[in-house]
Amino acid sequence: MAQITKIVLVLEYEGTNYYGFQWQANQPTIQAELEKAIWKLTGERRRVISASRTDAGVHAEGQVVSFRTESGLLTRSFVKGLNFHLPADIAVRAAYRASESFNVRRDAVSREYHYYILNRPTRGALKRGFAYLVSSKLDIDSMNGAAQALNGKHNFASFITRLELNIKTTEREIHKAEFKRDGDLVTFEMVANSFLPHQVRNTVGALLRVGMGRMTAGEFKEIIEAKKPGLAGPTVPAHGLCLMRVNYRNPLEEICS
Amino acid sequence: MAQITKIVLVLEYEGTNYYGFQWQANQPTIQAELEKAIWKLTGERRRVISASRTDAGVHAEGQVVSFRTESGLLTRSFVKGLNFHLPADIAVRAAYRASESFNVRRDAVSREYHYYILNRPTRGALKRGFAYLVSSKLDIDSMNGAAQALNGKHNFASFITRLELNIKTTEREIHKAEFKRDGDLVTFEMVANSFLPHQVRNTVGALLRVGMGRMTAGEFKEIIEAKKPGLAGPTVPAHGLCLMRVNYRNPLEEICS
Repeated sequence: MAQITKIVLVLEYEGTNYYGFQWQANQPTIQAELEKAIWKLTGERRRVISASRTDAGVHAEGQVVSFRTESGLLTRSFVKGLNFHLPADIAVRAAYRASESFNVRRDAVSREYHYYILNRPTRGALKRGFAYLVSSKLDIDSMNGAAQALNGKHNFASFITRLELNIKTTEREIHKAEFKRDGDLVTFEMVANSFLPHQVRNTVGALLRVGMGRMTAGEFKEIIEAKKPGLAGPTVPAHGLCLMRVNYRNPLEEICS
Repeated sequence: MAQITKIVLVLEYEGTNYYGFQWQANQPTIQAELEKAIWKLTGERRRVISASRTDAGVHAEGQVVSFRTESGLLTRSFVKGLNFHLPADIAVRAAYRASESFNVRRDAVSREYHYYILNRPTRGALKRGFAYLVSSKLDIDSMNGAAQALNGKHNFASFITRLELNIKTTEREIHKAEFKRDGDLVTFEMVANSFLPHQVRNTVGALLRVGMGRMTAGEFKEIIEAKKPGLAGPTVPAHGLCLMRVNYRNPLEEICS
């Protein structure tokens, strides 16, 4: 009998045509496509677990997932083999063999997201699927000033829409929250141990109000301190968001074989 | 009777779904879409002229075009008005009113193109429509070393496929030809007074041979000096190419009103 091994994949995908990562009945999802490709490659029906559940329309450059297999295929064969079966908007960047105890979600120490804003008076064409158009002039310095209040461990209850029953705690630790401008493309880089649902998008929505002069840094800080669901936001659109990277205590190359 | 004025537009487009800029019978082209949008906005059937004819599948961040109108609309109304009528993959970034003597093609002093290469072992998902996948490891320093031979005025006959009858001269002046690496994204920046058909793509094709160790910088220089159509290349795919900017003696803001 073949031995069961755990395979870890680094995934890239364009979320435009999917209802998010997680499986949903009768809807295209990244998980469903990946499980179909694994089935086509190995003949096995396997469940895939992701480090971060991306919402409908959200993209990823470095999602991390895992599944078990008895196929006995070489680890590197999963990269080419799955890329052959996956649609063009989903790609496997790397594959590793992990120990059974390694858990891609629980063992992740941080997640890095980018939110892209196209800051110009009128719509573009090239980045239309990957950046949110903001026509008003944005004061990036003010936004970065206000964003400093996010750093560190806080109760981010104000950044969820309503108290969801499956959230044990709304405390999160933010390692980085910073806007960078390159011409008319503004990138918000946010790193945290983990994120609440829509947290990046609600954070960007609130900080945009600061950037447009409609809210002060002090008022933004008060939103954090109020700890009341629904205060932050509005939730900016999904298509500007991209999961860039999931970090573990050591690089995956070292953790896995 | 309304006065005829010349309008100059800066355009951005994703070329994926078009048979290039120039009008072709029964095929979608950027020119056809733009002329249709002008007709919808003004009721006028107008011919559009471009500074650079981009090929099928080639993108643009800063194409410059012009047309005449008797509509009497405010110049800025062409930006919002045309964006309303244009499909999502074509956008007007700016509009100017030019003197009748200004010619977007003849008066252009240089064109800037980028060619994007995704340099990693396996295919991606996010940039699949905008970068050419090269799996072999590329030696960027060698490529830049060889590319130096392009700078200045040369007869680039080796960079066209065959002698085309409508080309008066194959002499061009290259101002810049340089590769830059950012992770696995390699960008070739090429600036010239004007370009021969497929010149950027044939130049990249030849320099990729240098980057893979299949050709020396000396052999690349010999290709230039041979002046024989068909020597350079292969022609790399259109989807990696983007017209970034067209330069005039002065910025369009100053030339136009």
